[in-house]
Amino acid sequence: MTYCLAIRLDQGLVFASDSRTNAGVDYVTTYRKMHVLQPANDRLFVVLSAGNLATTQEIGYHIERDLVQFTNSINLSNVNYLFEAAEYLGRVSQGVQQRHAPALHASGVSGETSLILGGQIQGQAPEIFLIYPQGNYITVSDETPYLQIGESKYGKPILDRTLHPGLSLEVAARIALISLESTAHSNVTVGPPFEISLYPRDSLALSQHMRFEDNSPYLTKLRQAVQQEMQRALDALPRFDWEGGGT
Amino acid sequence: MTYCLAIRLDQGLVFASDSRTNAGVDYVTTYRKMHVLQPANDRLFVVLSAGNLATTQEIGYHIERDLVQFTNSINLSNVNYLFEAAEYLGRVSQGVQQRHAPALHASGVSGETSLILGGQIQGQAPEIFLIYPQGNYITVSDETPYLQIGESKYGKPILDRTLHPGLSLEVAARIALISLESTAHSNVTVGPPFEISLYPRDSLALSQHMRFEDNSPYLTKLRQAVQQEMQRALDALPRFDWEGGGT
Repeated sequence: MTYCLAIRLDQGLVFASDSRTNAGVDYVTTYRKMHVLQPANDRLFVVLSAGNLATTQEIGYHIERDLVQFTNSINLSNVNYLFEAAEYLGRVSQGVQQRHAPALHASGVSGETSLILGGQIQGQAPEIFLIYPQGNYITVSDETPYLQIGESKYGKPILDRTLHPGLSLEVAARIALISLESTAHSNVTVGPPFEISLYPRDSLALSQHMRFEDNSPYLTKLRQAVQQEMQRALDALPRFDWEGGGT
Repeated sequence: MTYCLAIRLDQGLVFASDSRTNAGVDYVTTYRKMHVLQPANDRLFVVLSAGNLATTQEIGYHIERDLVQFTNSINLSNVNYLFEAAEYLGRVSQGVQQRHAPALHASGVSGETSLILGGQIQGQAPEIFLIYPQGNYITVSDETPYLQIGESKYGKPILDRTLHPGLSLEVAARIALISLESTAHSNVTVGPPFEISLYPRDSLALSQHMRFEDNSPYLTKLRQAVQQEMQRALDALPRFDWEGGGT
């Protein structure tokens, strides 16, 4: 399994992903699921992936090849809008899946992959898109400024309770990290290293790309702080009417 | 969908459930999913249910009938151990499901129901059991002192971060309510009224049975407090190394 997350803020974009891949519980490995692409100076893309690893990697190879070999066709260096990049990724994904569909189907394996594409093309606003395995896509609203793929349920309540477009990239990055942590804690197929990238609006470059190993000093500090704050919050919650006030 | 939760503490047991039932998004209704049974003076049982409503209700009728009509057979008034009550419920559940299986299967409908049984028989320790649709069952450990049925993922991280057997019934009840709230917020098929029951060890009676409507004063206060505490916690989290300390 996998858990990836992208957040759209007034100040820019935040991307987060875990690195655990499993084909059964006895073949658990580590792969990066966050891919940064700058196919031209006027644009920056970040792609997050969840699903069949072979499909994901083949999509990556096709994207790279299209940039070099098929420069007269649509590719990530010449799309005019970010939604066109989302459509392009959807087509590449569908193509890969359909090529392998008969063989995968015969083995009862799903070749599906969900993608998140985020970034900015100069002169336009930063955007994030979720690209479904079927190749269609959605973006976000100010009310729900985030997109998730993979094992999304455990880490959702913290996002719903705290995220809004006015947050700073740094605060949103901490929320994303807690969301990843909550998921990894509840589901062993999601796990560190965690990657977090920060994209400040109109910069066309990532300002930070962090990678946290399980025993990284920051992650350890963050876990302790969350635990402490949870304890403090529990103590501060209103008591039931029938409880004594003094206890 | 449904979300129900039971917690085993040194001081006793806590039970929590939502009340929303849906057959498609256009038939959303309210049903109690928490059933308190005291078939004899030396025992108290609480049953929580998630799954097919018809199966659940039929199980309920059979339990009641067995108490009155089949007093020479095993029923909830004469089992000697709580695990025997779990086995009995599993058998009743399987019987109901198998009777309707051909018709349900033909319609592509699942008749499955998961149950949580908790309570105490005098002279023994309080226990909680999760009874699977297949009729088998599990109990808890001190490391994971809770059981969930239904839509369990959204509300799980708060349990994993905070629950331990040494908590008071009141604090655990607040945690259960936040777990229900988080789930209802993220999934519209889980919703208030929420029911919470507290069972103090060796009392053979519930000390509290609370029911919270969506606009109940306590739930409103709790939501505000959680929101405030989350905000405070976010501000208190450790900053990334590259952030300025003063902002």
